[in-house]
Amino acid sequence: MAGFEEATKVEAGADSGTFTARIDPQWTVIGNPNGGYLLAILARAAATALDDLDHPHPHPLAASAHFLATPAVGPATVTVERMRSGRTVSQVRARLSQDGRHCMEAVLTMGRLDPATEPYWFGDPPPAMPGPEDCVHVGAQPPGADFRVEMHDVVDLRLDPAGLGYLAGKPDGSGELRAWFGFADDLPPDPVNLLFVADALPPASLTINPSGWVPTLELTVYVRALPAPGRLRVRQRTRLIQGGQHGPGVMDEVCDVWDSLGRLVAQATQLASVRFQA
Amino acid sequence: MAGFEEATKVEAGADSGTFTARIDPQWTVIGNPNGGYLLAILARAAATALDDLDHPHPHPLAASAHFLATPAVGPATVTVERMRSGRTVSQVRARLSQDGRHCMEAVLTMGRLDPATEPYWFGDPPPAMPGPEDCVHVGAQPPGADFRVEMHDVVDLRLDPAGLGYLAGKPDGSGELRAWFGFADDLPPDPVNLLFVADALPPASLTINPSGWVPTLELTVYVRALPAPGRLRVRQRTRLIQGGQHGPGVMDEVCDVWDSLGRLVAQATQLASVRFQA
Repeated sequence: MAGFEEATKVEAGADSGTFTARIDPQWTVIGNPNGGYLLAILARAAATALDDLDHPHPHPLAASAHFLATPAVGPATVTVERMRSGRTVSQVRARLSQDGRHCMEAVLTMGRLDPATEPYWFGDPPPAMPGPEDCVHVGAQPPGADFRVEMHDVVDLRLDPAGLGYLAGKPDGSGELRAWFGFADDLPPDPVNLLFVADALPPASLTINPSGWVPTLELTVYVRALPAPGRLRVRQRTRLIQGGQHGPGVMDEVCDVWDSLGRLVAQATQLASVRFQA
Repeated sequence: MAGFEEATKVEAGADSGTFTARIDPQWTVIGNPNGGYLLAILARAAATALDDLDHPHPHPLAASAHFLATPAVGPATVTVERMRSGRTVSQVRARLSQDGRHCMEAVLTMGRLDPATEPYWFGDPPPAMPGPEDCVHVGAQPPGADFRVEMHDVVDLRLDPAGLGYLAGKPDGSGELRAWFGFADDLPPDPVNLLFVADALPPASLTINPSGWVPTLELTVYVRALPAPGRLRVRQRTRLIQGGQHGPGVMDEVCDVWDSLGRLVAQATQLASVRFQA
């Protein structure tokens, strides 16, 4: 059982800007590597590719990825091309491929988050929800489901029971899930692993209608601050599911992550394909 | 005064996948080309590059751009690399450069929006706001401002007066602006020009504190449906402004666009740099 740090490790490859990674079987949903997990691998490669800068840019500030083909568990190649390095930020293009097959393309704006930065204005306080002890721990095998969400065994995910009618076959129609999040091995949150956290909750469409795996087409994450240690609060909402009655639909999801001090530390948006059960 | 169609025209260049564009002086903010306008140029180039497909993919479904350097008004080169073409979508990488200087890098998932697709579920009805005749027309010269937003002379932008306290020096602190949007030449909305519409409102930070130009660092737009002809309703909100007290801050903005039938047709998120007036 590989922890997140081990599962996102990249090693310098043959050329400068080329890395090898190993897609881990544990950070998957029904056997498919999670999109945020893959984006974190690309961000680690990007940070490594930039570590020769005089002003290091180790943190993804904005990362956007388009998913082309689902990679398999196992070895993968990551290529990082530096496009521009300035004093405060660098931009890189990163891609993940397997056996010459192009699986994922991302652009990342990398920089350095300053621990002293304070919010000037915010409009989104963390959502009210019961404490972790009063939330529902979700593991790899959701009640009543005929599939496994492998990655939920390596995180400590506790869902607000208010949105969990779907576990009993009674979706509440809200389009929203809220959860407390931690890594099972107590890895503290950081700017790279927040890219995963922003894609770690079950799909918000479950509160509307059952479906299987919901593959991400596009995922954009903004990391807004260095997260304080401790449990994160995560809210996952969908706003529009287009199509889906007959064949696959397309859904957006907005995911927000607050740290243990109640500060908004990551914001994500994704477009995903969803196929409802008849 | 170039209309949007003319201002986003691309012409095939020397190599396949290379196009020339002309960045127009009218589609700017304080002389700086608007980010959504540039993204629309890239989408037009992407659609043109894909027009040899058996199943055409003329519409941007998801487009995400990172801005590296502000291009100048005048000629520019657009390069499009096809990464994958499937039956339902193609993904391309597109970049804009000027005199060898890399200004902007985007990834686009292109496809074909089906006019028959219906919403399966939605959580965001269009915001309540006064009709266009009771809103405030905003032109290139905002009242009391010492700068020009050139592009606001080629659009018909009517802002909900509820959020406009800032025009009289009394920002309402809401972080939200709402507007009716049309092109001045009555160009109907389409999937490519929606990329611009999603970045066409004044920055939502004006409702908090005055600032000058707010350059976009990253912009992601999802086009969710073919828009019906007629005026669009647009809502621009910020959720967190980080830093900004001493020097530049970083702001996110969420922009939503509804068509004349009240359907959510585009959703955007951006990260921008903002410097407040002391």
